[in-house]
Amino acid sequence: MSFQPPETLISGYHRFKDGRFRVERAHYAELADGQTPHTLVIACSDSRVDPAAIFDAAPGELFVVRNVANLVPPAEEGGGLHGVSAALEFAVKVLKVKGVLVMGHGDCGGVKACATGLDGLPNTYLGPWLSTMEPARAEVSGELGDAPLAEIADTLELVSIRHSLERLKQFPFVREAIEQRGLELHGARFSIHDGILEWLGEDGAFGAV
Amino acid sequence: MSFQPPETLISGYHRFKDGRFRVERAHYAELADGQTPHTLVIACSDSRVDPAAIFDAAPGELFVVRNVANLVPPAEEGGGLHGVSAALEFAVKVLKVKGVLVMGHGDCGGVKACATGLDGLPNTYLGPWLSTMEPARAEVSGELGDAPLAEIADTLELVSIRHSLERLKQFPFVREAIEQRGLELHGARFSIHDGILEWLGEDGAFGAV
Amino acid sequence: MSFQPPETLISGYHRFKDGRFRVERAHYAELADGQTPHTLVIACSDSRVDPAAIFDAAPGELFVVRNVANLVPPAEEGGGLHGVSAALEFAVKVLKVKGVLVMGHGDCGGVKACATGLDGLPNTYLGPWLSTMEPARAEVSGELGDAPLAEIADTLELVSIRHSLERLKQFPFVREAIEQRGLELHGARFSIHDGILEWLGEDGAFGAV
Amino acid sequence: MSFQPPETLISGYHRFKDGRFRVERAHYAELADGQTPHTLVIACSDSRVDPAAIFDAAPGELFVVRNVANLVPPAEEGGGLHGVSAALEFAVKVLKVKGVLVMGHGDCGGVKACATGLDGLPNTYLGPWLSTMEPARAEVSGELGDAPLAEIADTLELVSIRHSLERLKQFPFVREAIEQRGLELHGARFSIHDGILEWLGEDGAFGAV
Repeated sequence: MSFQPPETLISGYHRFKDGRFRVERAHYAELADGQTPHTLVIACSDSRVDPAAIFDAAPGELFVVRNVANLVPPAEEGGGLHGVSAALEFAVKVLKVKGVLVMGHGDCGGVKACATGLDGLPNTYLGPWLSTMEPARAEVSGELGDAPLAEIADTLELVSIRHSLERLKQFPFVREAIEQRGLELHGARFSIHDGILEWLGEDGAFGAV
Repeated sequence: MSFQPPETLISGYHRFKDGRFRVERAHYAELADGQTPHTLVIACSDSRVDPAAIFDAAPGELFVVRNVANLVPPAEEGGGLHGVSAALEFAVKVLKVKGVLVMGHGDCGGVKACATGLDGLPNTYLGPWLSTMEPARAEVSGELGDAPLAEIADTLELVSIRHSLERLKQFPFVREAIEQRGLELHGARFSIHDGILEWLGEDGAFGAV
Repeated sequence: MSFQPPETLISGYHRFKDGRFRVERAHYAELADGQTPHTLVIACSDSRVDPAAIFDAAPGELFVVRNVANLVPPAEEGGGLHGVSAALEFAVKVLKVKGVLVMGHGDCGGVKACATGLDGLPNTYLGPWLSTMEPARAEVSGELGDAPLAEIADTLELVSIRHSLERLKQFPFVREAIEQRGLELHGARFSIHDGILEWLGEDGAFGAV
Repeated sequence: MSFQPPETLISGYHRFKDGRFRVERAHYAELADGQTPHTLVIACSDSRVDPAAIFDAAPGELFVVRNVANLVPPAEEGGGLHGVSAALEFAVKVLKVKGVLVMGHGDCGGVKACATGLDGLPNTYLGPWLSTMEPARAEVSGELGDAPLAEIADTLELVSIRHSLERLKQFPFVREAIEQRGLELHGARFSIHDGILEWLGEDGAFGAV
């Protein structure tokens, strides 16, 4: 255990507390009574893609799950702890969010790792976790064959989002919320390099918004 | 599937793209080459506690896992998909972060739910997930007996952070990183109402920073 | 002279330097070579109406004059130091801004003072300065007679902006820039209470944008 | 007159209104009742040096005068409109600010123009306005002789701030406020290139804070 708070985090916290929090104090005080986020965002843990920043969201708007490669695992019951599924259940059934957004991003290390067969990566947990992406990888591999790795990774980022959305629909309470109250499912990819956001459209293709 | 991007998200994205991203463009372009976050933050999915905001962190600084009640599950291998463990493995072994921070928060719905025995909550995934907190709940219950729920939940928020930190140390690669390169483990709680951040100190108590 | 920097300003500066400046460093470094603002904003010194905030402007975009009641004085030569006219000359002739915006605001103390005959105000400099607004006040008084003060002040805020715009056009170099390169003149009023911005339209009336 | 609001300003306003203002709404509503700024800042109109940004100031904190080269003119009565003096009188006598800060900046075009004898600049208003800096320029010239222009301009930026502070003390109501209620006078320079803020210290020298 380390007991000295890291200077970087503490000075950042004081900037927040004396700066933004001071001005937004009334907003935070109101929020302390409870949250009513409109959207659940399932995003990558990557340090460069903060959903609150990318959507300029106010505190209280986005319920956020972040894991490696923004994956939705299969809707299996039993057999372990399901963090994403628990957050999904809480967001959809208790908070009754209006929509769920699976947001991927360009230059995703997790996707690249999967595209290269997970070589050289620690595999006690990371390998099994990224294997969730295997059906998407197989689909891309079938389509693109031995295309350059960059092209495969780029396509896999998008296909994996589609697969996560399909798995979302395997959760009975998600299907129920879609049918009974119009829960919306969305997919998008953010590009770190140029800031462009592509949205999954009706035709199944991603296009800049 | 819903194909019309929600107006709230899209207008927020355009504020980001035309505002903050425009000014930080050079910073993002540089980040596109790769990430070197200094800290892994394990925080709650709650919409009111965005780690990047609370630590005024720049893009690229914090690798972030967010799940319900900011829990670290036990270090068990096999038996399912372990999203938190995979992120932990990636952050500690590949990204080689300097520290891991488990950050809880006040008014946490997940902790309150656990303190009240999970009554009335959906339990396909949420119940099992929150049961990770059971040893912490039992400890608090033993100490506080039939104290008011608010007091129990308040204490449980802190005790659960300590338990998550203990579980972190059960991961062999975490212990190894502590010993070999001084990886730091930290615990903290953010209060939504008044913005106060308490840090877990040497004496095992939480104190405002 | 006071030599201890005030804590409030210094801590605010450090928040800027360690926070926003750190991320925008490349943008500032580029700006150090010179400025090319697109607009000159003539705004009030009032602490509640920062033009850069209200227009979410990046450093380098707005050349800003701020004085009591956002006044453009008459285009007289000689007879003293003309700070606003000097800034106008620099912005229009040297920086060649594309537009000049006179931005007033609701609840303006200077306008209220003028509407009530400057009673009780210090008048070594403030009285003479606010007398620039006298023709506008006379116009409003003629129209509204003995209407309630709040209504008179509200109308005077708008009429005074129109008068400042008329005075702008008395500067030969402003007229020249309008004719030769399409310099634009604009008027707007910001409401502190509800954040609404009204823009002076073609019909001479102000309307929310 | 131009009636179409410029797209750049309007989209920036909407970012502010839908973003920051939305979260700070309660703060603005409270401010609508009146302002109590703690400091009057006299800064340059330059588009790169927004005092609210540099001091991370909340709306309501800084009463701001901005003119070319952040000059305080002499305390002469009569002889024209004195915008800076009027703002000073209002801030010191009515708002009763605690301090006045004259903030210059590096790479100041107005200072450079003065250092090079105002060659080639429009001189209907700008020349006379910048002549306020003439005593400072003469002092620097006497000290540095024919040093390189960059060195002269750099020194003149600092000496001109000292002269403005001396002129501030020529206003009887400023002297009175210093003696009777401890009004503070401060000088500082902000460097655009590296973000460093130098403060005028007890020894009459500027030093980084």
